[in-house]
Amino acid sequence: MQTVIDFVLELDKLKGVTRKIKPLGLERYENSAEHSWQLALLAFSLAPHADSGIDLDRTIKMLLVHDIGEIDTGDTMAFVEGGWEERKAAEQAAVKRIFGLLPQAQAAELLALWREFEDGTTAEARFANAVDRAMPVLLNLANDGQSWRENGIGYERVVARVRAPIEAGCPALWRHIDARLQEARQRGWFGI
Amino acid sequence: MQTVIDFVLELDKLKGVTRKIKPLGLERYENSAEHSWQLALLAFSLAPHADSGIDLDRTIKMLLVHDIGEIDTGDTMAFVEGGWEERKAAEQAAVKRIFGLLPQAQAAELLALWREFEDGTTAEARFANAVDRAMPVLLNLANDGQSWRENGIGYERVVARVRAPIEAGCPALWRHIDARLQEARQRGWFGI
Repeated sequence: MQTVIDFVLELDKLKGVTRKIKPLGLERYENSAEHSWQLALLAFSLAPHADSGIDLDRTIKMLLVHDIGEIDTGDTMAFVEGGWEERKAAEQAAVKRIFGLLPQAQAAELLALWREFEDGTTAEARFANAVDRAMPVLLNLANDGQSWRENGIGYERVVARVRAPIEAGCPALWRHIDARLQEARQRGWFGI
Repeated sequence: MQTVIDFVLELDKLKGVTRKIKPLGLERYENSAEHSWQLALLAFSLAPHADSGIDLDRTIKMLLVHDIGEIDTGDTMAFVEGGWEERKAAEQAAVKRIFGLLPQAQAAELLALWREFEDGTTAEARFANAVDRAMPVLLNLANDGQSWRENGIGYERVVARVRAPIEAGCPALWRHIDARLQEARQRGWFGI
């Protein structure tokens, strides 16, 4: 029982990892724990638009654990270029440490979910990656581009970063977001 | 697609619903969104100690949605006495409104999960309720009783409130917590 408690208290630290976007109507920045919760429910609600036959429950678990490595590394904005491999190696070391607080079978299951998300090759992982990339875009589209403007991120960089994963995992969602991003550009919601 | 986006942006409000406990090491209060994320992973890690044959995936979904009614009502501390039925009616109206943003089949599925948690009669709902009641206790036990002391909550009130649901949903967890609560009382971590 102590292993479970050590694990869940270690997870508490993800509530302190802040991202670049603010929840709608709040002055503080979002943290990776509440972000992960929202992604799980975006996956649920978006599932009818995903590949048929997808395992939604595995997708949800993937999304619940995909950011846990940030407990050791912090969040890096998706638009930061360079250092990607080093960061992923550090995140993998972090999740091995943290999942390793649990008994071996559970640790292995969580690590497999984390790797599946990172590899992005299964239908569930593609869908999960689409959800993860889409959520901050949806918040920015509802927020007059807050994190794009604060960080000097332009329209082309957003599209270059999010189009392929969203289109691969949920084409209908990309069609919607594509049109909304073009409107946002006309409204001046990008940083450059 | 717009229904999905309306729903997930409405969910964003749960990030602004604050509870009485602080994440470990942080000065702010926890919100119900990050709390729901942590519960889902506590359920995962605690599952080997739950009734055999439990449907963990349904338990996780129940925990992800169980607090969504607080978007309209706010969080009420588990120790507040009185007004319980009115609050539950208000939460039910809230989840009907919020889940109702989705197409009918998905709205019905989420409402059924929410009701199953509230009814607390299935093995999954008993386990989910045990997880929900245990998490703030585990945080208080790691936090020198922060929310108990701030709110004048005594040992007997905590035990009266959490023993039955935790024991019913996860007896091994109650045995562990029971002993830790007695230690906490000796250390003076309760409000009265």
